[in-house]
Amino acid sequence: MGMPMTVSRPDLWQRFQRIQSCPCGLTLDFSRLDWPTGYPDSMSDQAREAIASMAALEGGSIANPDEKRQVGHYWLRTADLAPNQGVTDEIKATHEHIRSFAAAVHAGEIRPPKAERFSRLLVIGIGGSALGPQLAADALGTAIDPLKPYFLDNTDPDGFDRTFAALGEKLAATLAIVISKSGGTKETKNAMLETAWAMDHAGLKFGPQAVAVTEVGSPLDEQAKSEGWLKRFPMWDWVGGRTSQTGPVGLLPAALQGINIDGLLEGAREMDEATRSPEINDNPALLLALAWHHASKACGAKDMVVLPYKDRLLLLSRYLQQLVMESLGKELNLDGEVVHQGLAVYGNKGSTDQHSFLQQLRDGVPNAFVNFIEVQKDRESESREVEPGATSGDYLLGFLLGTREALYKKGRESITLTMPEITPRTFGAVIALYERAVGFYASLVHINAYHQPGVEAGKKAATRALELQFQAVAALSTAGVPSTADEVADRLGKPEAAETIYKMLLHLAMNERAVSVEAGKRPADALFRALG
Amino acid sequence: MGMPMTVSRPDLWQRFQRIQSCPCGLTLDFSRLDWPTGYPDSMSDQAREAIASMAALEGGSIANPDEKRQVGHYWLRTADLAPNQGVTDEIKATHEHIRSFAAAVHAGEIRPPKAERFSRLLVIGIGGSALGPQLAADALGTAIDPLKPYFLDNTDPDGFDRTFAALGEKLAATLAIVISKSGGTKETKNAMLETAWAMDHAGLKFGPQAVAVTEVGSPLDEQAKSEGWLKRFPMWDWVGGRTSQTGPVGLLPAALQGINIDGLLEGAREMDEATRSPEINDNPALLLALAWHHASKACGAKDMVVLPYKDRLLLLSRYLQQLVMESLGKELNLDGEVVHQGLAVYGNKGSTDQHSFLQQLRDGVPNAFVNFIEVQKDRESESREVEPGATSGDYLLGFLLGTREALYKKGRESITLTMPEITPRTFGAVIALYERAVGFYASLVHINAYHQPGVEAGKKAATRALELQFQAVAALSTAGVPSTADEVADRLGKPEAAETIYKMLLHLAMNERAVSVEAGKRPADALFRALG
Repeated sequence: MGMPMTVSRPDLWQRFQRIQSCPCGLTLDFSRLDWPTGYPDSMSDQAREAIASMAALEGGSIANPDEKRQVGHYWLRTADLAPNQGVTDEIKATHEHIRSFAAAVHAGEIRPPKAERFSRLLVIGIGGSALGPQLAADALGTAIDPLKPYFLDNTDPDGFDRTFAALGEKLAATLAIVISKSGGTKETKNAMLETAWAMDHAGLKFGPQAVAVTEVGSPLDEQAKSEGWLKRFPMWDWVGGRTSQTGPVGLLPAALQGINIDGLLEGAREMDEATRSPEINDNPALLLALAWHHASKACGAKDMVVLPYKDRLLLLSRYLQQLVMESLGKELNLDGEVVHQGLAVYGNKGSTDQHSFLQQLRDGVPNAFVNFIEVQKDRESESREVEPGATSGDYLLGFLLGTREALYKKGRESITLTMPEITPRTFGAVIALYERAVGFYASLVHINAYHQPGVEAGKKAATRALELQFQAVAALSTAGVPSTADEVADRLGKPEAAETIYKMLLHLAMNERAVSVEAGKRPADALFRALG
Repeated sequence: MGMPMTVSRPDLWQRFQRIQSCPCGLTLDFSRLDWPTGYPDSMSDQAREAIASMAALEGGSIANPDEKRQVGHYWLRTADLAPNQGVTDEIKATHEHIRSFAAAVHAGEIRPPKAERFSRLLVIGIGGSALGPQLAADALGTAIDPLKPYFLDNTDPDGFDRTFAALGEKLAATLAIVISKSGGTKETKNAMLETAWAMDHAGLKFGPQAVAVTEVGSPLDEQAKSEGWLKRFPMWDWVGGRTSQTGPVGLLPAALQGINIDGLLEGAREMDEATRSPEINDNPALLLALAWHHASKACGAKDMVVLPYKDRLLLLSRYLQQLVMESLGKELNLDGEVVHQGLAVYGNKGSTDQHSFLQQLRDGVPNAFVNFIEVQKDRESESREVEPGATSGDYLLGFLLGTREALYKKGRESITLTMPEITPRTFGAVIALYERAVGFYASLVHINAYHQPGVEAGKKAATRALELQFQAVAALSTAGVPSTADEVADRLGKPEAAETIYKMLLHLAMNERAVSVEAGKRPADALFRALG
């Protein structure tokens, strides 16, 4: 609640001494969390179970029981950990293929047919196949990257046009990476088709400018093979989309952009090692999971606001939103009981958000705790002083400390993760820290973190909407008379579908396709007519 | 809760008939809101009061009592509504100055000293002086805008460097707009200084490439005048930052980018007119406010997830996050009673988020409702079919309908705002719709929507952190011996400040400024030493 806490300042300094060291120079500070001393120890039974489950997962157990899958993203950075030599070898070979492909592209040995060299990267994917690459591109990119990254992560026609317009003549120098496990994801498929058309329109061919990241033998894999794309990289069924940043999904775009992927893997590996520790008070990911457990009352009672004080980490909240909410937002627990679990995540960056929604976080409905991210190194260049003794970066830290204090004084809790600087290594460590924390948290509340049963329902309903569109257009055309959505629905024997039919037909009419509409006072009065 | 609702499909079609028409072709659909029939009428007393308060506000009352200010953003689009002729004339003259200044820049009559013409826009501002311009730039921009917009909305040194690197040689063709009511906002001041240094480094001068948007007579206004900046535009104390999109803050960057600001103002004006209606069931903003009131149980019990199915509207959720949370996230009501009000807002875009956190929204902790945004027009160019009878845009709508249905079946409520297309006019209407809805909602829960008392606390605490840094460096230097943060704090007679001193000194050391550090096992062991 919004009650001020009772920990006095000298006690805060003592609490702060228990700051948790992590690999790669990271630290975690739980001093602004109002948990009783010894809370982690009081959770030792659940914690031990979480550690044991994680060890089983890393050992190759079916950690995703609903989908009967192994969960192997930790093997990606420690290939020797994989449960069999075949997988170990495949991981190592794939990483080597990524390195050598990127090197050949950078050297101009692999080049587009109608340009000197590839200078643009177009990543085509959605969800787990987009957010990690987007975050890495923004967090680790520079103005002089060998390939400048663009993303298509939707099926928005205008969004496609905007991106192609932004690429302009550089479309000829664009390397497209299509990322989809099966190739069946509609958004990705549509984006691929639209890209191929844009290339065709510009006198280019898609295949010689494309690579696929997909499951071996998938329709996309077959298409890439038969059309002679530049290269195919594997997706494995033991890597979930939201934990694929250290697999080909994340590493290939990063390597092409010029990011040191070995540093990224090394940072993740170091964090993995540290977060295997069975010592509760010495395991950063376990402490983080317990902090969430305490702050959200083990049931998502509070949202987690992620506030990195660094422009480069703006997308971290969106990445963690996916990682955390898709993993933890579950209806059933592992015993099949209805639990409606979850932990909502949002946020942008500090100190910017101080001038926006922080007003509510401090004064308003007390339904959030904050995960501050501090980056100690200010910049590559040298700073000048904006006033005697102070730089822009001093102010940035000042705002972080000020905001944290203003929240704390009002009884609003926070956690602070400090990074010495943003490098591939510290970035990899952060990714691994949150991956492991999410896994532990799922164990603490006894749910499966590795499936997403709710995602399918929306896709199926969308497919039904498209089918209704086809049927409605055909029915209109056959009838030959203007009809209302009700009438079309009745004619199809689907009176319950009137609204969907109305929305789909109206959309067609608004885009001057297949039907026209004569609007009425109410939706039920709108008259649709087949064109042509 | 997560219980499926009982409204059957035929009844849904009937509910859908009550879709609310709004100006500019917009519609609001509340059919997936589980409110009892007649809920708006049952709230008629509060609604009438909200209407009356809004009328008083528009008439020039002190609608922001804490700060003793008028609230006049509605006058910006209907200048004749302003409570006195002086204000009316000033608004009209300012709009004219914006139009003529933008025209002169576009014509090359106003040009930078060392480039042919201005082709880049650098908007320097934060919070209310950034989010509206950012949203408009993204929602309404094209690849061939006369000036391409960039933003500095933080005090992140690396963020500055990134933006200057992105501008590259175009810095010489960059028009900087510094937006700050007083000029005292540190982030904005630092960003302005850093930009001036970057220009200086490139052999350029800031003044001849800069304009100010600030209160007449403010220190920033004086600086701009004395340094001979290109132009100064006013900020008025009766326009709050988060409602300044139709004032110079929003209009000047938009006009320079080539956006039709008269369309934007016209759309807002039309929506204002429609949302003045005293008929509850015919006032879109009042219905929207009542919908939030119902869905969040009048106390922020649920978060509002904003999901535009359009890449261009990605920033809408961030804009509304500020507008709604800063306005409604309040500790006290108008009678000074502690109420901890608010309404948390987050979201990105559809169908992208379907592959991310929608899993939790459907299956997880039932603490959210969704505001879908549908845009009927797909694109400027003609669509090809991704499969017989279906385009990318059909899929986009299919996903919206599918997601909405999947949520509804699980008892998760939603509201759908439909826009025929994204133009300056419909954009202005959307801005005005949410502005008015926030004002009404504040009346319904009896709070002041127009102040932000919680924002100051963080700023003051940040200033104290900076002062501690200065004092600590001085104390270290005077002492001449390595000291721990405790020791420095004690020497300053501020033992309670040890942690802040530790953090500030460590940050200096990490950036090789003023002090060095010899780390210890715990923060209390770290030894700091003055450099040089």
